[in-house]
Amino acid sequence: MPRIENPDRVVIALGGNALGDTPAEQIAKVRAAAPTLLKVIGMGNEIIITHGNGPQVGMIQNAFAVANEASGGKYPKIDLPECGAMSQGYIGYHLQQAIGAAMHRNFKRWHVATVVTQIEVDPDDPSFQNPTKPIGAFMTKEQADAELAEHPDWTIVEDSGRGFRRVVASPEPKKIVEAPSILNLLDDEFIVIACGGGGVPVVRDYSDKGCYKGVAAVIDKDMAGELLAEDCRADMLVLLTAVDHVAINFGKPDQVDLEDITTEQAKEYLAEGQFGKGSMEPKVRAAIKFAESRPGRTCIIGSLEKADKAISGKSGTRIHM
Amino acid sequence: MPRIENPDRVVIALGGNALGDTPAEQIAKVRAAAPTLLKVIGMGNEIIITHGNGPQVGMIQNAFAVANEASGGKYPKIDLPECGAMSQGYIGYHLQQAIGAAMHRNFKRWHVATVVTQIEVDPDDPSFQNPTKPIGAFMTKEQADAELAEHPDWTIVEDSGRGFRRVVASPEPKKIVEAPSILNLLDDEFIVIACGGGGVPVVRDYSDKGCYKGVAAVIDKDMAGELLAEDCRADMLVLLTAVDHVAINFGKPDQVDLEDITTEQAKEYLAEGQFGKGSMEPKVRAAIKFAESRPGRTCIIGSLEKADKAISGKSGTRIHM
Repeated sequence: MPRIENPDRVVIALGGNALGDTPAEQIAKVRAAAPTLLKVIGMGNEIIITHGNGPQVGMIQNAFAVANEASGGKYPKIDLPECGAMSQGYIGYHLQQAIGAAMHRNFKRWHVATVVTQIEVDPDDPSFQNPTKPIGAFMTKEQADAELAEHPDWTIVEDSGRGFRRVVASPEPKKIVEAPSILNLLDDEFIVIACGGGGVPVVRDYSDKGCYKGVAAVIDKDMAGELLAEDCRADMLVLLTAVDHVAINFGKPDQVDLEDITTEQAKEYLAEGQFGKGSMEPKVRAAIKFAESRPGRTCIIGSLEKADKAISGKSGTRIHM
Repeated sequence: MPRIENPDRVVIALGGNALGDTPAEQIAKVRAAAPTLLKVIGMGNEIIITHGNGPQVGMIQNAFAVANEASGGKYPKIDLPECGAMSQGYIGYHLQQAIGAAMHRNFKRWHVATVVTQIEVDPDDPSFQNPTKPIGAFMTKEQADAELAEHPDWTIVEDSGRGFRRVVASPEPKKIVEAPSILNLLDDEFIVIACGGGGVPVVRDYSDKGCYKGVAAVIDKDMAGELLAEDCRADMLVLLTAVDHVAINFGKPDQVDLEDITTEQAKEYLAEGQFGKGSMEPKVRAAIKFAESRPGRTCIIGSLEKADKAISGKSGTRIHM
């Protein structure tokens, strides 16, 4: 088993589900998590933190939609890119405060900064032809028809009897627009929080001299974390989730928790359909991409509670070439 | 009249009212403003941008309150610190995109970054004993009583027959928590967007080892911009508003637009009550504080449309020692 001694740059991705559903829950949860993250610094690493925003961006977008309807249009509906940017500010603020508090208690003299991050995606990404990521609240047929009349570019699908729902593309992240900001802070020993919620997806608008514009899409946060780790020249990518290990035969009597696998093994398990779509599968894909991006790179998938143990090889699943 | 040749570091404060009321308006307005801001860079300056968030933070907070009521509590109410952080992400994203677009068109190779900013205030600031800043929607007497039952620490006042409204403190900003992040980016020639909406106000919580916690308050954005300018060792503070000049006898037949005044003259006009409370008065106070903070510092109050002219002395009101 390859051992990583003092990996000096570590990207840690937190799941949006780990952040709770309300501001009070979120600040409590990030404050509970911060000491573990600080331990990773105490082990001699630089850390970059990214996070999901599924529940949070849903809350923001749905609340504005409800307020829009209840107020007869006084409050605007807010589309995904702006909701994503709001969630980055909201979650980043709590992470800054929580990490700041943990540092304050431990006399660490690092600083922590949230960079509002856009990520460029390709407007020709095939996912735009076949959007599958459900967002926003369920709608009746009538509401769906009204939305389609107002937004002819939307795709709305029926969701197995539970109503109608808008779906958007989940394109591959191509370029972190704010990479220079992130690297700049990182090089001066800041803890950087970036690419929240997979980043705000933007495309170059060739009708407007190639300037960026926001696009209603959701970038997978693990793939965004992978790109962030590559761009930051990280040695290790840590994808934190609700379970301690990646498992095969998950939930069956012969379930096996994986501790250390090669990317080749991981690909075989993927081909067998061992991992849950939308949960473990994208993490394993991101892990393979990172581990194969440069010799010596390792991805660890584990639980937030044991992040420090996972990094020192005592928990989690290590994926490497 | 003292001339400022090539002031090399300029803090520019944009009013929240200049940003429009919806995402579509906001992106259009910031894109219209960006080329003027870029001209300031073209003149050889570094710029730091800060902005108000009054309409935006009100929109966010009120929309969540409406959604909370309409959904029977499914969506949480969001208090001011978190709404402020959301507005920083939302406005910062649009500013990044607009400035990025203007740079892209002009082949500037600078980068632009939004730093989510907390500002420390003193929990013993006298304004906490006498909160006066109205926030949120108007309430009926019944709604006000229900809120007070739920939040005994709130202050709700009757607003001249228009209903009841929550008021919060407007404390003096003491310390920009993220100053190191801002300075770090600035030193590497980034355009930095910071202290949006006056920053998220935080106090040290001495019941919790002196860690920061958010506090429901509103820091005047001009005073936050002033502190930002001092902390960034700026040479010039530019407060942009809807009018080209500060005026005395405003709106009267003998109105005089001021072009160049000393801080002593400004104090006399303040004492005469020449400036509108909550509009021009806080700008003039911030201008005096900045101009007197170090010899050679100048504050300019002018319009967004003529920001570049104001900086080169062809528009606006210059205030200096």
